[in-house]
Amino acid sequence: MKSDVLVIGSSAAGLVAATTAKRCYPEKKVVVVSRQPKTLVPCGIPYLFGALAKTDNDIMPVDKMFAGLGIELITGEVESVDREARQVTLADGKNIAYERLVLGTGSLPRQATFIAGAELKNVFYVPKDKVYLDGVLQQLENCQKIAVIGAGFIGVEVADELAQNDKQVTLIERLPTILPLAFDVDVASRVEQLLAERGVSVRTDVEVEHIGGSSAVDGVFLRDGSKIEADAVIMAVGYRPEVQLAQDAGLPISPLGFIRVDEYMRTEDPHIFAVGDCAEKRDFVTRKPVMTMLASTACAEARIAGMNLFGLSAIKTFNGTISIFSTAIGTTGIGIAGLTEKIAAEENFIYVTGAFEGIDHHPGTLAGTHKQYVKLVVGKESGVILGGEVYGGLSVGELINTIGIIIQSRMTVNGLLTAQLGTHPLLTASPAGYPLVKAAEDAAIKMR
Amino acid sequence: MKSDVLVIGSSAAGLVAATTAKRCYPEKKVVVVSRQPKTLVPCGIPYLFGALAKTDNDIMPVDKMFAGLGIELITGEVESVDREARQVTLADGKNIAYERLVLGTGSLPRQATFIAGAELKNVFYVPKDKVYLDGVLQQLENCQKIAVIGAGFIGVEVADELAQNDKQVTLIERLPTILPLAFDVDVASRVEQLLAERGVSVRTDVEVEHIGGSSAVDGVFLRDGSKIEADAVIMAVGYRPEVQLAQDAGLPISPLGFIRVDEYMRTEDPHIFAVGDCAEKRDFVTRKPVMTMLASTACAEARIAGMNLFGLSAIKTFNGTISIFSTAIGTTGIGIAGLTEKIAAEENFIYVTGAFEGIDHHPGTLAGTHKQYVKLVVGKESGVILGGEVYGGLSVGELINTIGIIIQSRMTVNGLLTAQLGTHPLLTASPAGYPLVKAAEDAAIKMR
Repeated sequence: MKSDVLVIGSSAAGLVAATTAKRCYPEKKVVVVSRQPKTLVPCGIPYLFGALAKTDNDIMPVDKMFAGLGIELITGEVESVDREARQVTLADGKNIAYERLVLGTGSLPRQATFIAGAELKNVFYVPKDKVYLDGVLQQLENCQKIAVIGAGFIGVEVADELAQNDKQVTLIERLPTILPLAFDVDVASRVEQLLAERGVSVRTDVEVEHIGGSSAVDGVFLRDGSKIEADAVIMAVGYRPEVQLAQDAGLPISPLGFIRVDEYMRTEDPHIFAVGDCAEKRDFVTRKPVMTMLASTACAEARIAGMNLFGLSAIKTFNGTISIFSTAIGTTGIGIAGLTEKIAAEENFIYVTGAFEGIDHHPGTLAGTHKQYVKLVVGKESGVILGGEVYGGLSVGELINTIGIIIQSRMTVNGLLTAQLGTHPLLTASPAGYPLVKAAEDAAIKMR
Repeated sequence: MKSDVLVIGSSAAGLVAATTAKRCYPEKKVVVVSRQPKTLVPCGIPYLFGALAKTDNDIMPVDKMFAGLGIELITGEVESVDREARQVTLADGKNIAYERLVLGTGSLPRQATFIAGAELKNVFYVPKDKVYLDGVLQQLENCQKIAVIGAGFIGVEVADELAQNDKQVTLIERLPTILPLAFDVDVASRVEQLLAERGVSVRTDVEVEHIGGSSAVDGVFLRDGSKIEADAVIMAVGYRPEVQLAQDAGLPISPLGFIRVDEYMRTEDPHIFAVGDCAEKRDFVTRKPVMTMLASTACAEARIAGMNLFGLSAIKTFNGTISIFSTAIGTTGIGIAGLTEKIAAEENFIYVTGAFEGIDHHPGTLAGTHKQYVKLVVGKESGVILGGEVYGGLSVGELINTIGIIIQSRMTVNGLLTAQLGTHPLLTASPAGYPLVKAAEDAAIKMR
């Protein structure tokens, strides 16, 4: 079989690479190979443990989108890439030739082989795998006490969903705060308190000694000698890029384990692009390689690859990846864009912070009003805004994008203080107490 | 009495000018003169007719904020400004000397003297005046059928609030759509349908002939001969800047009726600044004077004036005013930043539009999911984003600020397509179908 553009993977990266390619190059034949016939919405996966209830509620309509655009979808496993012949071979022996190959092979949960007992029954992971997760959800029905190991975004979201689903949940984190890589302690401690109020037992600054049980789990033993009762464990200890296929094909892999790509997502081989969790990323501010693996980043990369497959049309005006995360816990939203204060300090930036706590409606007598806290990290001499963190209501998901665009535009505190922002009683903070602007004011006064 | 900084008015503009001045120049004596002892949250006023119910629920804590910072608040009416002597005289005869004077005299409802019957009892306006509005709210208790004349933001918000408050409401607009100056028809028609579903009777493209009644209103007669039963009329036919004091003091007034100011909010007199609804504004894109009167704009201007009173420290990096409006109707939010397509056409811009309709959560099976429509107006050759309109859920208030920053950064479609935006199932659209980015893609394809 022949293709012009062959995409491996149908999650966020593969989906957007294929649809963008077809829209930009309608005359090309675009083929996508996916392992499973149905693809999960990746960011919806933690909500399978609560609100969404089952995987069938979390399906991306990939087949319909592809059919509508004339993209061919094949279910199969790519076993090898022959770069010389420009073709791949599937597990069933079929070959597909390509003019351009896009690797969207994603990431896999990091295995907790460093924890004794991790091989026991009822120790689960959270991969982007519908069949596996169907099994997990079924088994969890019979479990009441659940330990979640690792308090990154996935751990926090899964723990909260399980607790809302009436499970008895303990969230275990080795570092002193939850979300330790994503947020500074001022935001993290607010989230920790909220989780506790919502029924999650949070244990930070503790090391897991081993997972106990004979065949199935019966508890998690900590290094301090205490035991957390559990009849299931969910491992949320991070992800690693899935690069086996690329590595076997001789493509260079970065020290952090990603497929090496340039700013336009091109590998060393001019016919092969890589996008999403498997592709190397460089931080927008620190300029260093980073471990960021986000669907939003994957989609941005896939868009660039898709547009640029046969010639660079989407010229990058922003350089590097800025991580923009957000999540919600009940009616509380939290978000982060760019550098935390902690990373700014570690990277030896000379910075000031500015912070303000206000409310997200005005006047505060309106129903649905939520506290809103904004913190900015600012280069002390340049005034350039390097990062922002927000704790507030559900409008935080878009507010953090405003901050993200501010950072990517290399806007300064002065620029922000002289810019216009819109406000409305039911939708935002008041114009006189808009926390983003007040935080910038606070930083400006410290810069003097 | 002597002051270093004297501010006239304590609404958004005056409040922020005074507090910013005191924070930037803590050694200066800052005095604010306000007409009434309590100041309303200006954008909350339409919600007095429904959700907020009474003016005491819509008060800005001006006195507390001023007391905390050491700003003196005087209740009184300034009758004249003596620019030579640098002092003002109040109605009670008291004089206050100033080093810098900030005029935040605001705006007044445009009187509908062009409509016969506008002088009848139960014809009301919507000024920023607590005492007057207390009277209106009391009288409306005895009225069931209410006609709102003028379907700008104030008219739409007041009409919807009254309808939710079980009044029988007719919203009357001379132009072919509601919100005719703010939105293009694609968004306006969606809002019109929503209002109808929520019980507001919307009459567009009709002219009021006169208001009928002997002493009190009994109906609104249209030019087509029909009559709308009404026992009260609310006039929402726009606002005009309140510049009497400035004019009497010999300060230049612009052809649109605003106090002439430079980009730093300085009037012709180097000791006098003007900010907010009374101060002249120039559009960010068209470069023409505009009628924009928004609290958010007022606060941005007041911040700049406050910082720059004794020397230009906040140097403008954005030029001109971009209008960013947003509002909510039930769980629907709408917003606009920069140019509409209509204005782009009228001003002879060579443009393309890009639009996309998606959803504001992902997957759409999540509770609270709302349709989200984004439209962008883009310079065809330059790719510069000139305006954006959004119809969606309650996250629209912050989403329109992302678009506002994009416009103010003079970002291009290419820049937006290569930028990062964060997404989360519970907070935003999906990364693969984020309407802002999909609208940019749509525009990019049309630019080819």
